[in-house]
Amino acid sequence: MKREPLCPAFDLDKAARAGLLGQRPAVLWFTGLSGSGKSTIANAACNELHARGKHTYLLDGDIVRTGLCRDLGFSAAQRVENIRRAAEVARLMVDAGLVTLTAFISPFRSEREMARRLFAPGEFLEVFVDVPLAVAEQRDPKGLYRKARRAELPDFTGIDSPYEAPASPDLRLDAAGRSVAFNVGRIIDAMEVAGLLSPPDGPRRP
Amino acid sequence: MKREPLCPAFDLDKAARAGLLGQRPAVLWFTGLSGSGKSTIANAACNELHARGKHTYLLDGDIVRTGLCRDLGFSAAQRVENIRRAAEVARLMVDAGLVTLTAFISPFRSEREMARRLFAPGEFLEVFVDVPLAVAEQRDPKGLYRKARRAELPDFTGIDSPYEAPASPDLRLDAAGRSVAFNVGRIIDAMEVAGLLSPPDGPRRP
Repeated sequence: MKREPLCPAFDLDKAARAGLLGQRPAVLWFTGLSGSGKSTIANAACNELHARGKHTYLLDGDIVRTGLCRDLGFSAAQRVENIRRAAEVARLMVDAGLVTLTAFISPFRSEREMARRLFAPGEFLEVFVDVPLAVAEQRDPKGLYRKARRAELPDFTGIDSPYEAPASPDLRLDAAGRSVAFNVGRIIDAMEVAGLLSPPDGPRRP
Repeated sequence: MKREPLCPAFDLDKAARAGLLGQRPAVLWFTGLSGSGKSTIANAACNELHARGKHTYLLDGDIVRTGLCRDLGFSAAQRVENIRRAAEVARLMVDAGLVTLTAFISPFRSEREMARRLFAPGEFLEVFVDVPLAVAEQRDPKGLYRKARRAELPDFTGIDSPYEAPASPDLRLDAAGRSVAFNVGRIIDAMEVAGLLSPPDGPRRP
């Protein structure tokens, strides 16, 4: 499944691009219920990484749904295809040298594993944004749970479509009991432990 | 059709990311027959831009066909969807602050115009890699024209599927009569004239 370098025919590779950026490319794959705080925490993590001079991109479910995946709905098969495309784009972004944060519900374990297999070992961190369903439903920032409970939104994760919580994520964030700032600190710590905030191995910025 | 910023809810935007990179994001959209030299010239242009400290990514048709678009064939409708997805990914890459080079046959004028409309004015340069069909067919680096002439490869551009040459591309490269190095020079010149090699407007790298 793993295919790298993506294009051996080209002179520049991931290492050359990451070297110019002075960083290690990686993907932080946020998963969790709607309303768990994935995008909020990922956005705050981007700010912190940007302040540290890291070049990031936040690939958000809502953005992808209005562009790349706007032909897809929310059936199980279409959710799988949504995550497949998102993972392929994240792979291109990482190949471009970026620290890529993805914020997708990504409810199925098999699709998250599919995503992981596109990356080199150590390059993919699964970040489980964990809140009880009751908390997410009470927050309901987009009013989606209310709609789902009225059966106006079929196949809604946590209501009538399953969320398969990660059994052993690289990082589990308590997004009900802890602040966004605290959770961003945990992400930075995890990246440091994983060596992702160290200088790259390849050639450096001149 | 144009939608920016891509996500107003996030703190970092294209200008902030481009500022950190110290460059102006853009897309160079290469179009031309199979065998015209799109990937070769784009690869050489990436080398030149990289040497100038520009952060680039080359989005190549062959790569996308093995990943993001591996569910698609070569019918007219599937070619349209292939280009739609490629354009959406290029838009995300440009939003990430990168100078993005795309190398797709992209045979239909309407899809190239669709791609252009995803970008801000001045951000999208259409680069027509122009060779006579006879030259591309004689080169035939992948043996595809031979297969197409034997009817083993249906819907092949230039043979039994049309190539609609750009009427007024931002740049037309004579890829039969001129060297790769010469054409890279013309690309750099065109980028300079378009202001794409100037420092960005936004906040600068600290």
